[in-house]
Amino acid sequence: MLSFESDYTEGAHESIVRRLLQTNLEQTPGYGNDHYCESAKARLKEAFGVPDADVYFLVGGTQTNSTVIASLLKSYEGVIAVATGHIGVHESGAVEYTGHKVLTLPDHGGKMDAGELRSYLKAFYSDGTFEHMVIPGMVYISFPTEFGTVYSKAELEAIHSVCQEYSIPLFIDGARLGYGLMSEANDVAIKEFASMCDVFYVGGTKVGALFGEAVVFTHGAPAHFFTTVKQHGALLAKGRMLGLQFDTLFTDGLYFKIARHADEMAALLKSIFLEKGYDVFIDSPTNQQFFVMTREKAAELHTKVRFEDWCPVEGGDIAVRFVTSWATKEQNVLALKDII
Amino acid sequence: MLSFESDYTEGAHESIVRRLLQTNLEQTPGYGNDHYCESAKARLKEAFGVPDADVYFLVGGTQTNSTVIASLLKSYEGVIAVATGHIGVHESGAVEYTGHKVLTLPDHGGKMDAGELRSYLKAFYSDGTFEHMVIPGMVYISFPTEFGTVYSKAELEAIHSVCQEYSIPLFIDGARLGYGLMSEANDVAIKEFASMCDVFYVGGTKVGALFGEAVVFTHGAPAHFFTTVKQHGALLAKGRMLGLQFDTLFTDGLYFKIARHADEMAALLKSIFLEKGYDVFIDSPTNQQFFVMTREKAAELHTKVRFEDWCPVEGGDIAVRFVTSWATKEQNVLALKDII
Amino acid sequence: MLSFESDYTEGAHESIVRRLLQTNLEQTPGYGNDHYCESAKARLKEAFGVPDADVYFLVGGTQTNSTVIASLLKSYEGVIAVATGHIGVHESGAVEYTGHKVLTLPDHGGKMDAGELRSYLKAFYSDGTFEHMVIPGMVYISFPTEFGTVYSKAELEAIHSVCQEYSIPLFIDGARLGYGLMSEANDVAIKEFASMCDVFYVGGTKVGALFGEAVVFTHGAPAHFFTTVKQHGALLAKGRMLGLQFDTLFTDGLYFKIARHADEMAALLKSIFLEKGYDVFIDSPTNQQFFVMTREKAAELHTKVRFEDWCPVEGGDIAVRFVTSWATKEQNVLALKDII
Amino acid sequence: MLSFESDYTEGAHESIVRRLLQTNLEQTPGYGNDHYCESAKARLKEAFGVPDADVYFLVGGTQTNSTVIASLLKSYEGVIAVATGHIGVHESGAVEYTGHKVLTLPDHGGKMDAGELRSYLKAFYSDGTFEHMVIPGMVYISFPTEFGTVYSKAELEAIHSVCQEYSIPLFIDGARLGYGLMSEANDVAIKEFASMCDVFYVGGTKVGALFGEAVVFTHGAPAHFFTTVKQHGALLAKGRMLGLQFDTLFTDGLYFKIARHADEMAALLKSIFLEKGYDVFIDSPTNQQFFVMTREKAAELHTKVRFEDWCPVEGGDIAVRFVTSWATKEQNVLALKDII
Repeated sequence: MLSFESDYTEGAHESIVRRLLQTNLEQTPGYGNDHYCESAKARLKEAFGVPDADVYFLVGGTQTNSTVIASLLKSYEGVIAVATGHIGVHESGAVEYTGHKVLTLPDHGGKMDAGELRSYLKAFYSDGTFEHMVIPGMVYISFPTEFGTVYSKAELEAIHSVCQEYSIPLFIDGARLGYGLMSEANDVAIKEFASMCDVFYVGGTKVGALFGEAVVFTHGAPAHFFTTVKQHGALLAKGRMLGLQFDTLFTDGLYFKIARHADEMAALLKSIFLEKGYDVFIDSPTNQQFFVMTREKAAELHTKVRFEDWCPVEGGDIAVRFVTSWATKEQNVLALKDII
Repeated sequence: MLSFESDYTEGAHESIVRRLLQTNLEQTPGYGNDHYCESAKARLKEAFGVPDADVYFLVGGTQTNSTVIASLLKSYEGVIAVATGHIGVHESGAVEYTGHKVLTLPDHGGKMDAGELRSYLKAFYSDGTFEHMVIPGMVYISFPTEFGTVYSKAELEAIHSVCQEYSIPLFIDGARLGYGLMSEANDVAIKEFASMCDVFYVGGTKVGALFGEAVVFTHGAPAHFFTTVKQHGALLAKGRMLGLQFDTLFTDGLYFKIARHADEMAALLKSIFLEKGYDVFIDSPTNQQFFVMTREKAAELHTKVRFEDWCPVEGGDIAVRFVTSWATKEQNVLALKDII
Repeated sequence: MLSFESDYTEGAHESIVRRLLQTNLEQTPGYGNDHYCESAKARLKEAFGVPDADVYFLVGGTQTNSTVIASLLKSYEGVIAVATGHIGVHESGAVEYTGHKVLTLPDHGGKMDAGELRSYLKAFYSDGTFEHMVIPGMVYISFPTEFGTVYSKAELEAIHSVCQEYSIPLFIDGARLGYGLMSEANDVAIKEFASMCDVFYVGGTKVGALFGEAVVFTHGAPAHFFTTVKQHGALLAKGRMLGLQFDTLFTDGLYFKIARHADEMAALLKSIFLEKGYDVFIDSPTNQQFFVMTREKAAELHTKVRFEDWCPVEGGDIAVRFVTSWATKEQNVLALKDII
Repeated sequence: MLSFESDYTEGAHESIVRRLLQTNLEQTPGYGNDHYCESAKARLKEAFGVPDADVYFLVGGTQTNSTVIASLLKSYEGVIAVATGHIGVHESGAVEYTGHKVLTLPDHGGKMDAGELRSYLKAFYSDGTFEHMVIPGMVYISFPTEFGTVYSKAELEAIHSVCQEYSIPLFIDGARLGYGLMSEANDVAIKEFASMCDVFYVGGTKVGALFGEAVVFTHGAPAHFFTTVKQHGALLAKGRMLGLQFDTLFTDGLYFKIARHADEMAALLKSIFLEKGYDVFIDSPTNQQFFVMTREKAAELHTKVRFEDWCPVEGGDIAVRFVTSWATKEQNVLALKDII
């Protein structure tokens, strides 16, 4: 059956799997101390224009979020995120499990508002009882957001500026970073992106890899981050699997090419839904698309194509999500014309 | 350079990587809800003779240990292990990070003694102040141990029996399970193994897979174990990568065949060292071999072959570790004759 | 200076301090294994009509909340509370520090709505992705609430009923329990109260004791709760200090008498503010009273009497809090007539 | 019945309880922001000769240990202690509950050996796999130890010197500090003590107070320590109870006078046991005394006087503990002559 269920339904870009096969019996040191990781780190630093950054490879998104956040927070601090942020909703409390509260702000199409962030921090330190509360220790945002939306350069700069004002790091969850940076709506250059935060990760799992997320600490990693990764059970023994994948993705801009393809397929998909008279639920310029339909229509479509019911909409209708990826075939998108 | 550094220096058994390539663009549901996982679970339950078991696939060993242990302990409980147990030494405190103490007993060539375990538990509950201490909530052992040794059937049964007496589960770390079960020294049948504990894992990372550990709860998993896995950052989005690997390894007994090969290579390697007059440090019947040599000799050998310095030995010499694996070539073992 | 800052500005009811002096050099066993604790437990069980309950004495409120909550939740569970609940706001993330998320519902004058609780739980388990979220494991409410309001018997029963429907315990924070039960607005009999929840605590710190909270598990405590208390650093060596205080407070209904006095003083205080034309911010029938005034007025009053600025009110005014207690003197309340 | 069970069987020095009564209805701000705490802090800084120190008051010993340790360690670090250290044995895993491992060294009569500490740290950083282990982040010792023994000035300096070499703080558990400093065997001057560590606490619970431990950070406290205390449930609402007690104990050297009395009573007690032909189990110069006797003798004595069975001794005998305190009456010690 046709599937637009998520961007992790296939394996990996074929060049990755072929290279795994070619290099399979090579013997390398474990835990990321191999030449593939070394090469991949160099390529990532080059791609994002951060020669002095520290790069680490982890396996999955939730793991990366909780490991990075725990490494940056002091024990009495929490992380600020919007209410729809992935860490506060769909990560089974992984952040709280490490002892830290997720402090929530309202979201705007999945995005944090710099003004609201500043007001929150100002009000916090103006409150005479603030020492009885959780001290805000960092800010977490997603690019693109859980709703596929992207921050403009000005918005990112404004958030980063508030963070700098309060001396707290800004962490950007880039589980779908490629789809954000390649979006037509995006005005942030790849080489500018890293300068707008203190740490971010480049999502591999959802953008062409079998698995893997590359964490980039733009000003250097916290002390003993390797040990923190191990302590979180996030250290891959055969670390070269991660190095090889990111090395491949960041050779000749493959990561960005395949991400652009997904965005183009998403635009095509959206145009088909709009032609058919559907309303968008949230207007996303990336690979996740959200539409409104009746529950009957959704039920009928579920028999023909895989997608996710997202949430109820006021009035009884339902919002649904269709996702394209690096692997989406144009013919499958076009096939929707006859289905929806 | 020749390497006997560890059993995770290569990729995976070629049949796994080829199958990854063949199935690469198939679309499947995420998080382990796919037919590869389903099939692999069935094969594992069949292989170990536990039709009612619950099987979960995780990515790595430290991750598996801390996730399983945290899922079984109450917040006031600790896990009993020998002083050389992996969880107490080389996992960066991952168990303590989840709030639990590792309670240590002495080791005997890496093994726990059932009598000492019973004495410990008896003394604990005889101590009038025991409620001020950490309550022992489970027992952790490794099969084979960190020194390559294996428990006899009688030894396992004795430990399990003490656990049952005190109503605490026995967890067996099987990171190298295949090498243990296929050892000439082993008297535990594959289908008997599961009945000697409450939960164990079948190591893939060190026995032919790219990565992956299969956790087998012989009497069923704790409630919401899926959520616990997610909370620990241990849930792989493209879960089928794990299913496919274990499905392959447990088709036609591949897992055990390649494990036996490693043990045979280890026996050959040991015979070469013994011929050359080296003493064994610990007499291991599995794929890890430990020898004693002078520091000068070790330094010289390090220029010719990769292996690990293990620990200082009284008198100034050093113990070293040579490891074979599913991927070890006989010619490379034989080549040691001219090197050592 | 006159102070209505909080209900913990004085020491303890004089009969407690006198008794401490009288019994000072008696030798008793530590950790609560003394006859004062035994007697106090019997009196508490009698007062609340729960002969089979387990009673424990802890030192402070935040400590009691985090210890009780951690003892009842499994590691993958969170606690449901309203957004204004003490555990989610003014406890420095003590609950998250033990690894658990506080799941928030909207508050209504500080109270949880049973209908909203049911909707939350129903929606949670209807969400196909719920296993990726924090499982709701218990409900926390305060009686009276942080705004001094009290639940009616029908409201408590409705919340308890939802909890029973979903098999999760209901925990009532009774830091100011006496003031709630003695309120004119309260329709819950003392001996009925315990049947409406699974565990609650009787606040001593704010109701006549030097310190101390009595936790009552109405159907018995979780296994090894003593060890949990110790692990949380909440076990008082000279436990009899707690027993003696609660024994005194629950002799001849002292606890309730002094609580009623505070409520009467609060009613008098409120009538004075109303006479003077102030608006109430939240209409509280217990010992905490909230009024609205201009910031200039508040600033002026701060020079004459101690009270707390509570929060900004729309339009530029401010809400303030005046608190009476067991120790409040009528003449001091009346003195407000000339001050406000 | 006569009791030498512990040093926390009575209430507090009478001057403390009288002062509680005298000041009972005074209104003061909460959480330690009162003039009693201010005065007590000044007296403590004066007594220990540390004008720039930060002083905090907590309620109990286990609480103080876990709060201070968690405030000083990074998430990947552990605390080094001897195997008999209180934090590793009788605190129900409170340190591990905050996520940190207790790394153990052998004890010598309860004491840590500076040479063994240095060897441990040297070996740790020489181990090529140290990044896979728990990083040692601080050192914990007790003065006097759990066996009543005291470190000499030279021994303390040696341990502190190793800590400085490795840039890790030294924390001294002073639950019985007074009894150590007033011991005839002690050669550390009160005003020298603070310079031999980075943080220590002055035990009140066991030395004349109802409860309370004064933490002294000799070079200043970690950022937001107040919030850490609250997060650990260790913040007393009526903080002045702690201030008043320490203010009293550190007026006119009361703390040291009553501690010396306990040591003198212990010396008397020991002389009586020696006269009667008992062997000491460990030769303690402070208020805890350990003797060896047959199990029959111990059973007989238990019918006449309260004391603790400590541990079995090789050969079938038992070690027992008799404890004196600030409250011990000479006549009760002398009464032992006819009993033992």
